[in-house]
Amino acid sequence: MKFSLTILGSSSAVPTASRNTTAHVLNVHERFFLIDCGEGTQIQFRKFRIRFGRVHQIFISHLHSDHILGLFGYLATQTLIGRKKEIEIFGPPDLERFVRNHFSLFPESLPLKIVFHPLDSIGVSKIFEDKAVEVSSFQVRHRIPTWGFIFREKLGDRSLLIQEPRSYVYCTDTLFEPSLSDIITGCDLLYHEATYGHAELNRAVSTFHSTAKQAAELAKLAEVKQLLIGHFSARYKDTAPLLAEAREVFPNTIEAIDGLSIDIPVVFHAEQ
Amino acid sequence: MKFSLTILGSSSAVPTASRNTTAHVLNVHERFFLIDCGEGTQIQFRKFRIRFGRVHQIFISHLHSDHILGLFGYLATQTLIGRKKEIEIFGPPDLERFVRNHFSLFPESLPLKIVFHPLDSIGVSKIFEDKAVEVSSFQVRHRIPTWGFIFREKLGDRSLLIQEPRSYVYCTDTLFEPSLSDIITGCDLLYHEATYGHAELNRAVSTFHSTAKQAAELAKLAEVKQLLIGHFSARYKDTAPLLAEAREVFPNTIEAIDGLSIDIPVVFHAEQ
Repeated sequence: MKFSLTILGSSSAVPTASRNTTAHVLNVHERFFLIDCGEGTQIQFRKFRIRFGRVHQIFISHLHSDHILGLFGYLATQTLIGRKKEIEIFGPPDLERFVRNHFSLFPESLPLKIVFHPLDSIGVSKIFEDKAVEVSSFQVRHRIPTWGFIFREKLGDRSLLIQEPRSYVYCTDTLFEPSLSDIITGCDLLYHEATYGHAELNRAVSTFHSTAKQAAELAKLAEVKQLLIGHFSARYKDTAPLLAEAREVFPNTIEAIDGLSIDIPVVFHAEQ
Repeated sequence: MKFSLTILGSSSAVPTASRNTTAHVLNVHERFFLIDCGEGTQIQFRKFRIRFGRVHQIFISHLHSDHILGLFGYLATQTLIGRKKEIEIFGPPDLERFVRNHFSLFPESLPLKIVFHPLDSIGVSKIFEDKAVEVSSFQVRHRIPTWGFIFREKLGDRSLLIQEPRSYVYCTDTLFEPSLSDIITGCDLLYHEATYGHAELNRAVSTFHSTAKQAAELAKLAEVKQLLIGHFSARYKDTAPLLAEAREVFPNTIEAIDGLSIDIPVVFHAEQ
């Protein structure tokens, strides 16, 4: 049973020749969840051979261009290829108006049925659940209202097999916020933005972003199993120093690269 | 003195793993003109190492997603990278409302100065001119109002050197329209859409598109020097049959491929 994350975009703000803006796809038992949707996300689906039809839920963290511009093309294509099944979109309250407004201006209609679920929680709240996964949202600290997401595997009868449920936490865009460690404690994979290196701490703070070192500090505080950093500023032609900086604090850190897939393996409880 | 076209996107409607939706960049004496702006155009600029700062005029043929979705990210990035110089956009009358509406919904503002020039001509009319080039628009026949563009080199004093002015005609999306041959007659390079192979003529007609054979027929009628076909339906995994079909009618045909650059060489009049 898969629990696997694929990176579709790892750049912040503006894309580079090798990094699109943010989008992730999480595969939980062959159910696919799209998280953020930067420009060109539908192109990355084609490149990395992920089938659109497998995605029924989309989660949007906040309303900055580099996290949502791909949504229009993604949805327009769903319509063009004849998708009938509805799509659920979880995102900031203004997202529905934003998307409907866009399509109302377009000569093409949007026959695709979309159900919007506005995020409005302050604390952690469950926003979606199916047979395989439970998803919760929580607020992070950015210039505009922004949410992180926790995806937690549901095992049903398999929990009898002393298998541990796996979890993925998505945390961008945000200031370093140590109080989040309670929420994400012990997760298998934490994605945390690392827009800047720590030498640019002032810039990170003034733009409500984090440094690679801070991402690692949160991972350490929360005792997560693995840290994935991304959302790199386009100023870093070489991101190796950011990865090194994070690993100094939290050795089990990897770097987001477009097309990278990370399988989170099944872990069994040690027998008592 | 360059007169060179670069293809940024050659797919119609939906992008594929190797073809973005439509965008072309024409370099006339190191002045760059962007023609249509499908999703991911700014990413193609990075990949093919074209500098944004060189583009001051954008030409938009019509308001279908696959020709304009990249405009929002393209303009947002100009703002982010601190562009000060204004951008002129020539396009359908509704385009200004469309772009301004999009940015008004966004938390980010659009400090970039944009001057919109609505296209409203029925016949051929000059819409732009600078030292290097003169641009005219003309209507083609699609489901919604759609314009083609003629870029004609200006030579100034160089015309004394018996050098011939070069020309590029952009013609998409459109039905086969033989009456256009008068307008585009003798141009150096004609880009004409070839969404379908001729076996799909009925589908081409019902969707107001052309076949590869029809594109070639227009090129032959208009006695152009070279034909470039593109805007291929994503149904064609292999576009070689479309190219072959066009070459049967008009041998000097080439196929649009993302990243392809076509230099139009200087031609001198034979001395009398």
